[in-house]
Amino acid sequence: LEQLGTVAIVGVGLIGGSIGLALRAGGLSKRVVGVGRSTVRLREAQALGAIDEGTTELAQGVAEADVVVVCTPVTQIAADVQGAAAVGSDALLVTDAGSTKRRIVEAVEKHPRGRAAFVGAHPLAGSERQGVAHAQEELFEGRVCVLTPTAATPPDRVRRARGFWSALGCRVVELDPVAHDSFLALTSHLPHAVAAALAAAVPDEALPLAAGAYRDGTRVAASDAGLWTAIFLENRAPLLHALDRFNSQLDRFRQALEDHDAAGIHSWWEAARAHRRRFECLKDIERIED
Amino acid sequence: LEQLGTVAIVGVGLIGGSIGLALRAGGLSKRVVGVGRSTVRLREAQALGAIDEGTTELAQGVAEADVVVVCTPVTQIAADVQGAAAVGSDALLVTDAGSTKRRIVEAVEKHPRGRAAFVGAHPLAGSERQGVAHAQEELFEGRVCVLTPTAATPPDRVRRARGFWSALGCRVVELDPVAHDSFLALTSHLPHAVAAALAAAVPDEALPLAAGAYRDGTRVAASDAGLWTAIFLENRAPLLHALDRFNSQLDRFRQALEDHDAAGIHSWWEAARAHRRRFECLKDIERIED
Repeated sequence: LEQLGTVAIVGVGLIGGSIGLALRAGGLSKRVVGVGRSTVRLREAQALGAIDEGTTELAQGVAEADVVVVCTPVTQIAADVQGAAAVGSDALLVTDAGSTKRRIVEAVEKHPRGRAAFVGAHPLAGSERQGVAHAQEELFEGRVCVLTPTAATPPDRVRRARGFWSALGCRVVELDPVAHDSFLALTSHLPHAVAAALAAAVPDEALPLAAGAYRDGTRVAASDAGLWTAIFLENRAPLLHALDRFNSQLDRFRQALEDHDAAGIHSWWEAARAHRRRFECLKDIERIED
Repeated sequence: LEQLGTVAIVGVGLIGGSIGLALRAGGLSKRVVGVGRSTVRLREAQALGAIDEGTTELAQGVAEADVVVVCTPVTQIAADVQGAAAVGSDALLVTDAGSTKRRIVEAVEKHPRGRAAFVGAHPLAGSERQGVAHAQEELFEGRVCVLTPTAATPPDRVRRARGFWSALGCRVVELDPVAHDSFLALTSHLPHAVAAALAAAVPDEALPLAAGAYRDGTRVAASDAGLWTAIFLENRAPLLHALDRFNSQLDRFRQALEDHDAAGIHSWWEAARAHRRRFECLKDIERIED
């Protein structure tokens, strides 16, 4: 793997900070520049070793970059990608780490420079925590990263984006942006909504009797409200469809319970358990492949 | 703490086996007798050090016991408690580890010997795994154990039950059986039903893109179908009420999403997050108290 020159990270929080730590620890790039709105947070990122230097000016941060990774909230990504592509070199690769893809890719591809530079990406890694203080060098190790190139994306940018995310430890797969959003509505956005509903459904007076099932079932409800409100709205239609699937499953259980239908509950549970087991098997296969 | 004489464990699976391991490792009792239906599994429990000896005859296992702990599935507990109380000594303490309490306590208290010997208990510890092979000596360390004595329960039995579960490492609290079942419907049975619905809602083709939120949100869906079908049916009415609370939360989210209501989603999420944070704070307080 060839060493990269300058990588600019736009938005140096948990994800952007972890990218910076991995790049610097692995000697994957010559220089890591952080771009953010707050000089205080940029200094924190520098002190933690996530970036070599920081700037609040996108144009300045991008000027000498070979690669720009946009790690801002999903509602801001398209504008930041556009901004970077507009002022960066003709050879610039721009990628991102947003949890949704369709609208971002559509918005970026309206502009020739964005279309020429951008490969949408979503590394399936994260945490319910926020901020560069929780960044981890190994956050991407062994994780899937979905790239969402389209017919308009230059093949050499796809190749370089693959190289970039692979160097961070990701197993790279490609999907079209619409398929990405449908799958992630089910595998990530739905679980987040369900976790929050579960957290809120248990009244305070019952919490002292909550244990492992509540703890794990609600973990991601500790995530940031602003980030998740944006993700839900960006992926509204696929998420509504995912909620339908979930409600239909829970309604089947409820009906069997109302009917005192032991066989119905049992077979419903076994089907759910089989899904969960297939998920565990996939994870085992992935570990073997690593 | 005075050492116990003989403790009989009826049902030597994950829970019963963990009790046996803790009793023997801590020298808390002179002898641990396992009672089960399968000699093969009893021999396995003996080989793993969870019991000193095993028998398939309840009367034989209980004959010399000071304490009997019934760890069979919830539908069988009342009959096993009755059986033990009928043949045991007059000083016998019978307790259990069932996830539901109202129906069990009512059934046991119909019989004078059961009423005189029994203190219902529910240690909030467990696992999605089954069987004595997954038993752990420290399973109960720091966990809440809910005792559900009634006006009919002899105070000395409550005192001894407190001593027994405390010796295993539990923090003992008392609740009436109906309150126990209402709280646990919310804090445990609802999270299990939600986990299974979530597991089943995600189709196979999406599973390769599932990560932490799905993994944690569905962990307990790997639990045994028979055990959970029985728990759900035993606690049907409180669980239906808990499902109503959950559905009302998820419906609020869905409506806000349909309405493109960013402020509504944001405030809904913040309320859920606050619940989750109170749960974490309670856990922190418990750790400090330990």
